[in-house]
Amino acid sequence: MKGELRGSYVELNFSQRLYSRNFGERKDSKLTLTLEESSYLLSKGTLEVYEKGRKVELPELLKRAKLTEYFVFERLRESGRKIRFGEFEEYVPISENEVLSFEDLEKLAGKKLAVVDEESDVTFYRISSFNEYGKHEEELKEVEGHLCRERVIVKDVEIFRKYFYGTEKSGYVALSLVESLYLLEKGFLILSDEDESFLREKVNEKLYRVYRDLRERKFMVKTGFKFGSDFRVYEAVKSVKELTHSKYLVKLKERVSMRELAGDTRLAQSVKKKMIYAMVDEKPKYLLVERVRI
Amino acid sequence: MKGELRGSYVELNFSQRLYSRNFGERKDSKLTLTLEESSYLLSKGTLEVYEKGRKVELPELLKRAKLTEYFVFERLRESGRKIRFGEFEEYVPISENEVLSFEDLEKLAGKKLAVVDEESDVTFYRISSFNEYGKHEEELKEVEGHLCRERVIVKDVEIFRKYFYGTEKSGYVALSLVESLYLLEKGFLILSDEDESFLREKVNEKLYRVYRDLRERKFMVKTGFKFGSDFRVYEAVKSVKELTHSKYLVKLKERVSMRELAGDTRLAQSVKKKMIYAMVDEKPKYLLVERVRI
Repeated sequence: MKGELRGSYVELNFSQRLYSRNFGERKDSKLTLTLEESSYLLSKGTLEVYEKGRKVELPELLKRAKLTEYFVFERLRESGRKIRFGEFEEYVPISENEVLSFEDLEKLAGKKLAVVDEESDVTFYRISSFNEYGKHEEELKEVEGHLCRERVIVKDVEIFRKYFYGTEKSGYVALSLVESLYLLEKGFLILSDEDESFLREKVNEKLYRVYRDLRERKFMVKTGFKFGSDFRVYEAVKSVKELTHSKYLVKLKERVSMRELAGDTRLAQSVKKKMIYAMVDEKPKYLLVERVRI
Repeated sequence: MKGELRGSYVELNFSQRLYSRNFGERKDSKLTLTLEESSYLLSKGTLEVYEKGRKVELPELLKRAKLTEYFVFERLRESGRKIRFGEFEEYVPISENEVLSFEDLEKLAGKKLAVVDEESDVTFYRISSFNEYGKHEEELKEVEGHLCRERVIVKDVEIFRKYFYGTEKSGYVALSLVESLYLLEKGFLILSDEDESFLREKVNEKLYRVYRDLRERKFMVKTGFKFGSDFRVYEAVKSVKELTHSKYLVKLKERVSMRELAGDTRLAQSVKKKMIYAMVDEKPKYLLVERVRI
């Protein structure tokens, strides 16, 4: 088929074959294609494009095309989806250089980011709102603690062995600040007034609110440091001896670059966990991000 | 054994047993221990500490101890190393909250970071300077290209299939900006003068200098996007069909937080690659970071 380049679009005689495959817009006896649709059809050898008798090659069209969207269009078309250019269904084309705020990501819940990397490859990430609950049960008893700089030291090692708080050292357990404040607020940790006020000062407020919220959702929560995250999250922990793998990694993030998102989800996937971004607004909010194949 | 707390140290009768295990300093018939050494011996049940007849418990000592160093001391001691407190051999105690500049990290080449996380667990990362060379060989021929926004479009698909530049799309290859500039400078890419000057404007200078340096070291270099890095690096690539796994991930970093370092090395390890941080000073410099068990 032959089309004529007319500035920002290509015009050709109406083709039922193209039109029924969702290419172009009908105008009387003509079909008009966007530059991206034309590029695609040209690259496939279906279309030849001319401008006043001169043959137009692919790069000339692509120079003026929306390239990120084009690569996503090409990818989705090649996977058999008869999408129209610009109407990408649940797919949201985005360049690897972009940085999104948590709020931007939140608006994309239920959709799939189609990230175009430097090598024009397209990777898909599903964004979902996360509102799950765990099954962790515990029956704590009171313990006495002492704030030592960034830790609370507790003598009763059962709080680690049975309840998985802190880390057991030789003859004592070192609790993290968020664990300590949580136990304190729930009435299970006894601290001197001085230690209590220091503890409240030292705790990172947002981190604590996410920790507490996840705990109140009946998850067990530990540091995610070794995975580069704030927390790793267990559905339930019976005891340290019967520990199963954690299910989620949680990172507090107000802005996330596509590259970081790619790295985070890759790491989570490789350790069989799911990646969650969290933000504290009036209350903590969560988004689950997963790489998906299409 | 019994010791007396005297402000910033604990004093006891000289003990050959402790002294030969590298604890304390001898002063005539006395042995003086740091608060951290005393804490360690107290936690092990070897030492009792008193202050004017009152028994001193562990938290009281730890409140005044250097906690990060203490946890590393405890960890190294428990692994059988008879180190003195404060003399950590090749180990550098550091808290997970720290952020190091590339220059700081560089000074630690040959040493091991001993990172204390929120749960007082210690993880070890070896820092090494990286000065390796690859074995990639190629005999390129000239190709013509067209700059289309962030890509150079080339018709000759051999540049991908055989030489692994860019990505093959339908009937064309899309080169990244760094690949294009490299090929241009080496005389293998023909661009119009206009395209050339736009290309030079668009390329990220530092990223390009690292790309070129690695290429000149005979590595093959592609984007590391899916791993959250700038580049993935192959020792050699014969053709796309015979592609083996890449060996390194490279991230340009002027400052790196311990948490990011933990995440990066974990990801690299899980995909059987090694993590490299790069910085461009007068010329590109590299540091290899690996988690090590001790």
